[in-house]
Amino acid sequence: MRRLQLLAVLLALLAAAAAAEPVLRAVTDVPSSASSDGGGGGSDSDALFCDSWMLSVETGNAGPWSAIPARCGDFVRAYMEGERYASDSAVAAADSLAFAAQALASGDGGARPAWVFDVDETLLSNAPYYAVNGWGSQEFNETSFDEWVAVAQAPALPSSLKLYNELQGLGIHIILLTGRSEFQRNATQVNLFFAGYRSWEKLILRQPPDIGKTAVQYKSERRAALEAEGFKILGNSGDQWSDLLGLPMATRSFKLPNPMYFIS
Amino acid sequence: MRRLQLLAVLLALLAAAAAAEPVLRAVTDVPSSASSDGGGGGSDSDALFCDSWMLSVETGNAGPWSAIPARCGDFVRAYMEGERYASDSAVAAADSLAFAAQALASGDGGARPAWVFDVDETLLSNAPYYAVNGWGSQEFNETSFDEWVAVAQAPALPSSLKLYNELQGLGIHIILLTGRSEFQRNATQVNLFFAGYRSWEKLILRQPPDIGKTAVQYKSERRAALEAEGFKILGNSGDQWSDLLGLPMATRSFKLPNPMYFIS
Repeated sequence: MRRLQLLAVLLALLAAAAAAEPVLRAVTDVPSSASSDGGGGGSDSDALFCDSWMLSVETGNAGPWSAIPARCGDFVRAYMEGERYASDSAVAAADSLAFAAQALASGDGGARPAWVFDVDETLLSNAPYYAVNGWGSQEFNETSFDEWVAVAQAPALPSSLKLYNELQGLGIHIILLTGRSEFQRNATQVNLFFAGYRSWEKLILRQPPDIGKTAVQYKSERRAALEAEGFKILGNSGDQWSDLLGLPMATRSFKLPNPMYFIS
Repeated sequence: MRRLQLLAVLLALLAAAAAAEPVLRAVTDVPSSASSDGGGGGSDSDALFCDSWMLSVETGNAGPWSAIPARCGDFVRAYMEGERYASDSAVAAADSLAFAAQALASGDGGARPAWVFDVDETLLSNAPYYAVNGWGSQEFNETSFDEWVAVAQAPALPSSLKLYNELQGLGIHIILLTGRSEFQRNATQVNLFFAGYRSWEKLILRQPPDIGKTAVQYKSERRAALEAEGFKILGNSGDQWSDLLGLPMATRSFKLPNPMYFIS
């Protein structure tokens, strides 16, 4: 009887494999648009490639890069201006809140549960700056970006502001850990208030000895210091993998989307 | 003169901020489709949500999950059957090869450079099985999946086969590290040959003491053993974060797409 059952399963699977021919064909076709950056043209193939390129950035597969691919300029603008950026950010925030609530409920937060937030493209959106600077297709200009920071009018990423308030409501200590420098503390505080962020436990900026360190090194050192102070870092939200990787890591890390630029 | 320049930059930025009003609006609108799984309906809002849901899976934001969201069944089928799966996989493979070539050129590989590949949804595609099992919308059925494995006819993921041959051509040692069990060694070898994988350094399967370990624990232990044997694990390719996370990690990890199922 058991052998008959197995035989039946096997026959069903072979029938299924025959029925699945179109699937096999799809898996076997590699579209030429993805295999090289140059050839083919056409906006459909650009859209397909740029979707795949952005996924490679978001998963960290892409590694270091200095400018968005030339063929993806329109894609990045459309992504940032359209509803996908807002939707992707909102889902990341919902995942974060669900984890935080569950972690606290199971007692994983300890006496001083904490959440680390990056600032740029995490709490604050620099979309207005990048909108007039090619959405990442132009080389980074530190002078003009620092001027934009000094203006202190970057809006909140709405889903991050909502998450921020929800985490505070759960009693989680909020730590802001940014690659911005100490001389930008005042502008950063003013901008955070302007955008609706009302209070935080610490705002950590790069000090003179941190200049020249990679973000991974600088941020890992600060997470280690936070743990040494007794904080349990439950979550870490950042738009760069360099916000999230390196030891010690948070219990869970949340990658926010950013197809505009890469920081190592 | 310098102050005048800064003033000009400031004025340009303020003008830009005014011109960027539509951008600010886009950043401030959160589409209702992303904020809850239930409401709204409409296939457009499903498409937007499911794109964001898949990104959350691919970045690891989603955490553990047991079935694809009900509203994303059509999305996952279309993704797997269409060109996006092939394109996303091809870009991941291209990223992997670019890194490997550069790492070897700069001498990072040492005497025994190695690359770890997962098997299911990494070297082999089980799309024909999932095509007739709801593309991840049905609960995992170990009996029928093991039967499918025994049939040994899963096709290669084409971009992975190409990468595999290219890495071997560079002289990199290929290690296969799978969650499959030792009793499936023969079927796995037969299937790998059937799919075009001709040779490898090691094929590591779960031994009896590994049953019940998480993939992170089991695979991390095996990577540690490989390092102890003198292999330098340059790269690691897997469709699950549990293939990639845990210490020691490869120099670079490459996440292949898989919206069908989650393994912890």
